[in-house]
Amino acid sequence: MSVAKSVGWNIESMQKMKTLFVKDLKPGLEVTEFFVLRKKELKEYNGQRFLKLELGDRSGRIDAVIWDDIDQAHDEAQVGEMVKVKGWVTTYKELPQLKVDKIRKAKKDEVDLVDFLPQAERDFNLLYDDFKNVILTIENSYLKRLLELLIEDLSLMEKLKRAPGGKLWHHARLGGLLEHTLKVVSICEKAAQMYDLVDRDLLITGALVHDIGKINSYSTDGFFDYTDEGRLLGHIVSGNELIDRKIQKISGFPQDLALRLKHLILSHQGQLEQASPVVPQTIEAVILHYADEMDAKADAFSHIIKTQKIKGKKWSDWVHLINRFIYLGEDEED
Amino acid sequence: MSVAKSVGWNIESMQKMKTLFVKDLKPGLEVTEFFVLRKKELKEYNGQRFLKLELGDRSGRIDAVIWDDIDQAHDEAQVGEMVKVKGWVTTYKELPQLKVDKIRKAKKDEVDLVDFLPQAERDFNLLYDDFKNVILTIENSYLKRLLELLIEDLSLMEKLKRAPGGKLWHHARLGGLLEHTLKVVSICEKAAQMYDLVDRDLLITGALVHDIGKINSYSTDGFFDYTDEGRLLGHIVSGNELIDRKIQKISGFPQDLALRLKHLILSHQGQLEQASPVVPQTIEAVILHYADEMDAKADAFSHIIKTQKIKGKKWSDWVHLINRFIYLGEDEED
Amino acid sequence: MSVAKSVGWNIESMQKMKTLFVKDLKPGLEVTEFFVLRKKELKEYNGQRFLKLELGDRSGRIDAVIWDDIDQAHDEAQVGEMVKVKGWVTTYKELPQLKVDKIRKAKKDEVDLVDFLPQAERDFNLLYDDFKNVILTIENSYLKRLLELLIEDLSLMEKLKRAPGGKLWHHARLGGLLEHTLKVVSICEKAAQMYDLVDRDLLITGALVHDIGKINSYSTDGFFDYTDEGRLLGHIVSGNELIDRKIQKISGFPQDLALRLKHLILSHQGQLEQASPVVPQTIEAVILHYADEMDAKADAFSHIIKTQKIKGKKWSDWVHLINRFIYLGEDEED
Amino acid sequence: MSVAKSVGWNIESMQKMKTLFVKDLKPGLEVTEFFVLRKKELKEYNGQRFLKLELGDRSGRIDAVIWDDIDQAHDEAQVGEMVKVKGWVTTYKELPQLKVDKIRKAKKDEVDLVDFLPQAERDFNLLYDDFKNVILTIENSYLKRLLELLIEDLSLMEKLKRAPGGKLWHHARLGGLLEHTLKVVSICEKAAQMYDLVDRDLLITGALVHDIGKINSYSTDGFFDYTDEGRLLGHIVSGNELIDRKIQKISGFPQDLALRLKHLILSHQGQLEQASPVVPQTIEAVILHYADEMDAKADAFSHIIKTQKIKGKKWSDWVHLINRFIYLGEDEED
Amino acid sequence: MSVAKSVGWNIESMQKMKTLFVKDLKPGLEVTEFFVLRKKELKEYNGQRFLKLELGDRSGRIDAVIWDDIDQAHDEAQVGEMVKVKGWVTTYKELPQLKVDKIRKAKKDEVDLVDFLPQAERDFNLLYDDFKNVILTIENSYLKRLLELLIEDLSLMEKLKRAPGGKLWHHARLGGLLEHTLKVVSICEKAAQMYDLVDRDLLITGALVHDIGKINSYSTDGFFDYTDEGRLLGHIVSGNELIDRKIQKISGFPQDLALRLKHLILSHQGQLEQASPVVPQTIEAVILHYADEMDAKADAFSHIIKTQKIKGKKWSDWVHLINRFIYLGEDEED
Amino acid sequence: MSVAKSVGWNIESMQKMKTLFVKDLKPGLEVTEFFVLRKKELKEYNGQRFLKLELGDRSGRIDAVIWDDIDQAHDEAQVGEMVKVKGWVTTYKELPQLKVDKIRKAKKDEVDLVDFLPQAERDFNLLYDDFKNVILTIENSYLKRLLELLIEDLSLMEKLKRAPGGKLWHHARLGGLLEHTLKVVSICEKAAQMYDLVDRDLLITGALVHDIGKINSYSTDGFFDYTDEGRLLGHIVSGNELIDRKIQKISGFPQDLALRLKHLILSHQGQLEQASPVVPQTIEAVILHYADEMDAKADAFSHIIKTQKIKGKKWSDWVHLINRFIYLGEDEED
Repeated sequence: MSVAKSVGWNIESMQKMKTLFVKDLKPGLEVTEFFVLRKKELKEYNGQRFLKLELGDRSGRIDAVIWDDIDQAHDEAQVGEMVKVKGWVTTYKELPQLKVDKIRKAKKDEVDLVDFLPQAERDFNLLYDDFKNVILTIENSYLKRLLELLIEDLSLMEKLKRAPGGKLWHHARLGGLLEHTLKVVSICEKAAQMYDLVDRDLLITGALVHDIGKINSYSTDGFFDYTDEGRLLGHIVSGNELIDRKIQKISGFPQDLALRLKHLILSHQGQLEQASPVVPQTIEAVILHYADEMDAKADAFSHIIKTQKIKGKKWSDWVHLINRFIYLGEDEED
Repeated sequence: MSVAKSVGWNIESMQKMKTLFVKDLKPGLEVTEFFVLRKKELKEYNGQRFLKLELGDRSGRIDAVIWDDIDQAHDEAQVGEMVKVKGWVTTYKELPQLKVDKIRKAKKDEVDLVDFLPQAERDFNLLYDDFKNVILTIENSYLKRLLELLIEDLSLMEKLKRAPGGKLWHHARLGGLLEHTLKVVSICEKAAQMYDLVDRDLLITGALVHDIGKINSYSTDGFFDYTDEGRLLGHIVSGNELIDRKIQKISGFPQDLALRLKHLILSHQGQLEQASPVVPQTIEAVILHYADEMDAKADAFSHIIKTQKIKGKKWSDWVHLINRFIYLGEDEED
Repeated sequence: MSVAKSVGWNIESMQKMKTLFVKDLKPGLEVTEFFVLRKKELKEYNGQRFLKLELGDRSGRIDAVIWDDIDQAHDEAQVGEMVKVKGWVTTYKELPQLKVDKIRKAKKDEVDLVDFLPQAERDFNLLYDDFKNVILTIENSYLKRLLELLIEDLSLMEKLKRAPGGKLWHHARLGGLLEHTLKVVSICEKAAQMYDLVDRDLLITGALVHDIGKINSYSTDGFFDYTDEGRLLGHIVSGNELIDRKIQKISGFPQDLALRLKHLILSHQGQLEQASPVVPQTIEAVILHYADEMDAKADAFSHIIKTQKIKGKKWSDWVHLINRFIYLGEDEED
Repeated sequence: MSVAKSVGWNIESMQKMKTLFVKDLKPGLEVTEFFVLRKKELKEYNGQRFLKLELGDRSGRIDAVIWDDIDQAHDEAQVGEMVKVKGWVTTYKELPQLKVDKIRKAKKDEVDLVDFLPQAERDFNLLYDDFKNVILTIENSYLKRLLELLIEDLSLMEKLKRAPGGKLWHHARLGGLLEHTLKVVSICEKAAQMYDLVDRDLLITGALVHDIGKINSYSTDGFFDYTDEGRLLGHIVSGNELIDRKIQKISGFPQDLALRLKHLILSHQGQLEQASPVVPQTIEAVILHYADEMDAKADAFSHIIKTQKIKGKKWSDWVHLINRFIYLGEDEED
Repeated sequence: MSVAKSVGWNIESMQKMKTLFVKDLKPGLEVTEFFVLRKKELKEYNGQRFLKLELGDRSGRIDAVIWDDIDQAHDEAQVGEMVKVKGWVTTYKELPQLKVDKIRKAKKDEVDLVDFLPQAERDFNLLYDDFKNVILTIENSYLKRLLELLIEDLSLMEKLKRAPGGKLWHHARLGGLLEHTLKVVSICEKAAQMYDLVDRDLLITGALVHDIGKINSYSTDGFFDYTDEGRLLGHIVSGNELIDRKIQKISGFPQDLALRLKHLILSHQGQLEQASPVVPQTIEAVILHYADEMDAKADAFSHIIKTQKIKGKKWSDWVHLINRFIYLGEDEED
Repeated sequence: MSVAKSVGWNIESMQKMKTLFVKDLKPGLEVTEFFVLRKKELKEYNGQRFLKLELGDRSGRIDAVIWDDIDQAHDEAQVGEMVKVKGWVTTYKELPQLKVDKIRKAKKDEVDLVDFLPQAERDFNLLYDDFKNVILTIENSYLKRLLELLIEDLSLMEKLKRAPGGKLWHHARLGGLLEHTLKVVSICEKAAQMYDLVDRDLLITGALVHDIGKINSYSTDGFFDYTDEGRLLGHIVSGNELIDRKIQKISGFPQDLALRLKHLILSHQGQLEQASPVVPQTIEAVILHYADEMDAKADAFSHIIKTQKIKGKKWSDWVHLINRFIYLGEDEED
């Protein structure tokens, strides 16, 4: 069985299977297509029960209703799963609504996640090549061995390639975790050249694995959400566990080195209020923290500017997460 | 080799080896006795170098000076180690000062830690019996197996018996961790009876292990201090690692149960600002948090009242850690 | 005149007078029934004025409109009062709406509050018996006398029986204050056994009266809301005043005991930011605070789990008040 | 018995009884004089026990020792009481020290508090006249009656005249409470003219009584300290109780007016974190809060400038309470 | 060219040019009138594109649609500009909606801003006279010269007359800045009489200019919004720059006086968290801060009470900005 | 007159004029040497007045006393000025103390600041060359002109060369401001390559001038302290004023570019609580903030590690400013 199968979704075949996207659903159109099931609700109107759904893909979302066999339809799929529906587009309160005649859960090899979720601009495999190339530069034998153990964990690496860097704010796209990781590495490499006390191999290893717990903290089945582990442990502790288990397998891994590496993971959010159980206490930790912050914010600002900048609009909408408007810039001269 | 030897200090022989304590050092007295070395400093006076020490035991601390062979004396022992000194008590600026003629590092089997550190009122072994008895009440087979694995880890259990519950504030005494753990268990037991949604075995197991990381977070070599692990990981993550490694050894341990148990450890400080990387999200977690807080504060208040209450004094000195005075009570009627 | 009359609502007769509840209002139905008036607003549509109402009972709420005699109808009742309406159920924008033909204020003996507000599972009188039984265990004669004065204040006690423990968050139901009080007493009783410095009678008395100001802070006329006193003084100061006035009636009540008891009321929220004008400074105060917190949170978590847990849903909706999701648990095995 | 006698200290006779102050104690001088006992401690030196005291008056403080009859001397007076001592001034470690031969508790009519504590510049009685004159301007009959009840409470008024406005920060001097109260009244009077919605009588009454609880919150027996009531209830609740008890004596006092007046007392610190159990919710409350803040800060700044300004010094020492330096101003031109 | 022309809007001619206001737009009415363009959006419905607008004036806002020549219409005016429209009132989802046939940008002399924005009760010119009269009382020659430079800056003064005191919270009306400034001056004048260390001329000058940066921080073109300068610099720094540039023009302006005056502008918000880059460090600064706060809050409370008080309503709606309800008062007796 | 003379201290001649430093002052030594006067105080002992001084240089500080002609001595120099003293070293309470016979203010050309203050490792002129080289890379003509105006301001540039980067925490050494500036530029250069939306010239210019206000905020006359401007305006506003005045001299400088550049200065501390009057709202601002933070913290950590690391010490002393210990690292292997 191939690796891709084992993680459940067809990765290799990158041909788009979907031909019709939500943004194209015009009233009157007949539809047979895959969507992700975002919400489902049993409702009643004038004594008749019906099933109300929200369907989506990477282009948007649409309401849908089912009037027949609703109990069977309700149990067919869970929120977050992919479904294949047959029906046609009506309007309700002047918005398009999909009237569904048939619905069934999609099979894993029928769909490609990239049709349903935003993804990084660069190809996953190219990003992953960069990740592996950074590892080649590590000279410390214990850190090198640790990183090789990660590389050898194929199922983990397949998840890594697609993991998002966040749920809502920065790098919220498939491959975003690798993108973010590589930029943080890049800033840390610069810092390692600038500050003579820095243990370069330790810092770069920390940069490579600082967010590795996010692999287990986000589910990417149809849309991004936290997993139980993401909520009950948090991505920082998940990452620390993951690294601890690998270190346990390396005989003679120095205790002091292990503590300093874990400290990088644990303290990288910089403050207790940001869910780091310890604050940065080594020079590598304080550098990693600011490299992480700089890339997270720069990506979030870039994303907002790119998606909101239109002619004549100099300021973004209010950004709740950071309580401010963001400057989108003057219009380009023609 | 016996277990006690392997943890370094002679535990079995409970006979006190020290006969002279700091509080008894009167001017003129000749002294040959063990102390913990708390500070050492090379100084110079009118061109002559000397070594200034601070020595201590569980009854207090005293300054000491060495004028001869100071380099050799300086290298003899590190801060935190036990030393045997020979000398006599002089006075300096009206305070007793020990003039030291000879100093050497103590051997591990010459001293008993309990002479140097405050300890719980109840015997360690009785407290530990109570701890084991609680485990007998657990019915969930996975949680029971996990707790048995702890019990079977003899070296860990020897450390547990003596571990303090804190460094400065609550239960800062040998055996304090067990005392605290048992009281938290007791409050949780009450709560399990009161709230019907509580998973009693999970809550009690969480109470038993919530602070287990403190075993690796405090050093008790002469006086209480943080270990490197205590500072770089924090006791919460240390405890989580310890439990994670045990769970890894239990085949079939349910993933969901593991997450909920770890969540109890991780969230028990209640807030991110208190170094918990996640906030309580289960009913067991919210109860454990308040049980932990209640016992910590009640012990701290009790300790302050017991040590500061004297006739005519109704209020404690200012308690910096909690920014308040504590009411010591009216004088007892005769 | 009976006590019940004096507080305005018919308590004795527990037979339900309402036969039709909001949740049962189907289009087409003719309705003559009591509701609580939650909102009223004069509006205008195409030059014609009408009165828009929101009506409710303990099963839900529904919009209503009146087109005739609207001025008279508007003045008939205030928000929060009970009304009797005659009309029939129409639909508006696909939701049921009540078209009202007649409306009049309800008489006090026509309605029973329990039809309009959620209430505790156990009977008020059984809860109150428990409350009185706790008082019997108090040995300190001054505290006993104080509690007896409360018991003798029949009008106060009638209000106590029905008072909610909160407006939105925990114990927001008739009888909730008694439920909460008794659980806090229960935890404090446990603590009094565990910590030898605790003055048990003082702590239990404090637990019994810590929230007594809530009686005057919430109105329960139709739905829960703050009273002017609840807003302008807060329930902590209300409770302190209430107890101060009773103590003024007890000759020789020791000044020191009075201060320590009031301190329990004033400091029980634990922090200034939580509206306590002083922080806990006695061992009884610090215990009462955590007992109060534990029961408040455990009840709130229980309520959320019980009302939100459905098959396939492991996490609650976002809980704004505490900024987190709550874990609802795995589905029960069949 | 005169009023002055009943509060314990001789107020009428304003002739200074002390002739010798701490600042004048030069080595060699024989001393028979009254001081306030600030600290006492039994100590031991080379086997001999002695009593170490700290004595003070409004000019400063000095160490003192007693070698004979120390047990009797120790029990003679409590910290905070006035003592008469006989002895002579020696030096110890180059500082003056009083060797005490005899000590006895002072009788109440032998001493005058003003010799021991700093006091307001204006005469207490003149300040109090101003206070009474403000009351004459109140027209609302209930508020007027309430204020008259205060005036009729002679023992309270005697305490009011001398009460300090604070312990450390602002108006920390005998008479300081009246000084502060009158300035707050003055600012509120201005505001009442400026904002048309303000109920002037309510605002001025609130200004007059907002800090009245300080009378019971500070002890002025020798030096300023908190009373048990000041610590366990806080001056805000003390003041509220005091006013509540007076209002209880006024038949027909409107409930609404009582709530709004108490609200002024309770909310005047402006924020929960500042120990107000409720935040300002009326226009009078928000004005009173800022008037109180302005006078408190202006007095504290004035005090620091007046006591620290010397030639060539433009900035105060670091002021911990507000985390800043204060600008003392340029030197005056000659 | 007159001054008024140079700032773009016709100020002199105070006759109202608008005859029809949003609140009067009834279905069926034909409309040819000026409005401010608040939003515009290109949308598509069933394949046909249309332009959706929001129009407003000082009486409210209304939706509007354009179906023809939408590209030309879209480019005709920017959000915030005044437009003249021709059309008639329809209803859509039971709300009035304006169907627009023609739209063009208004010419500056066709409209009067006061028709579109709320304004102060007193005439701008009377307020400005008061402002100038305060300046006459300044005796310090440098401060006087500085204020005269402001007065001589006619274009600045024209903006000052109309500038609002805030965007949402206090004094959010044309002329509001002058109203606020004069009240702050008035409170400071009182304080200058009360505290002898205050430099009266400095304090009053600070009061006059403390918010002058708001002139450049808010745009009043149709509705209140922040300017780029308001967002990127903030009104505090804008004001400081403005005063700094004027001071640069006054030869010999004492460095010390300049720093103390700028300090008043910079610190007047009182805390770093409130966007003051320095905290008040002079007695004038601390007084100005509280005078500013008192007037801002008193105005905001007054505005809420005046706009929300209706019969039977004792409490305002929840006020998000300050997290509380505001007491509106009892109903007036008839 | 050379530039160096105009700023008061002899910069050119780098020969050390001091031959004796505080750390070398042994009891018995006769001393004729320059020191900086750190404190002076008139005191009295047994009726005789004397002058107590604290003297210092870059190697440490020492107490000194003068018994004769103390009034003349007191007026000879101000705190912060350089003095020449003649005397000899005694001991007092076992510490060396300088008994001063003669004291006079130093002339400016007698002393070299570098003897009194710590300084950067690299030569000021080399650092300044780097600064100028960065300017050569700016292509935007307005920004280039602005930076050239700075370069042309010779007196400002002389101050820049020596200005410290901070008072206590990071880069607290002569030349520290340039060191810090260049490292921030370097990190920003890296970021400009990584994020495509960044305006590189704007970001680098912002990095070059972000802390330029520190030139006027710290005095370096003998020891580092805040100037009046540093305290009353803060270095952020000082820097903004400085840049604003230069921009005023450049005809046609685009308003938008000026706002965005000032925004970089104003927001670079990242948060209001950190004294930035606005938060970062442009992508350049958010990057500059983290570059600034990273270098400040990395320098502070480096300084602590370099000055505190000794054999056997793995942890720094408690660092109050950031509330943590810092890890100093394992001992180097021999």
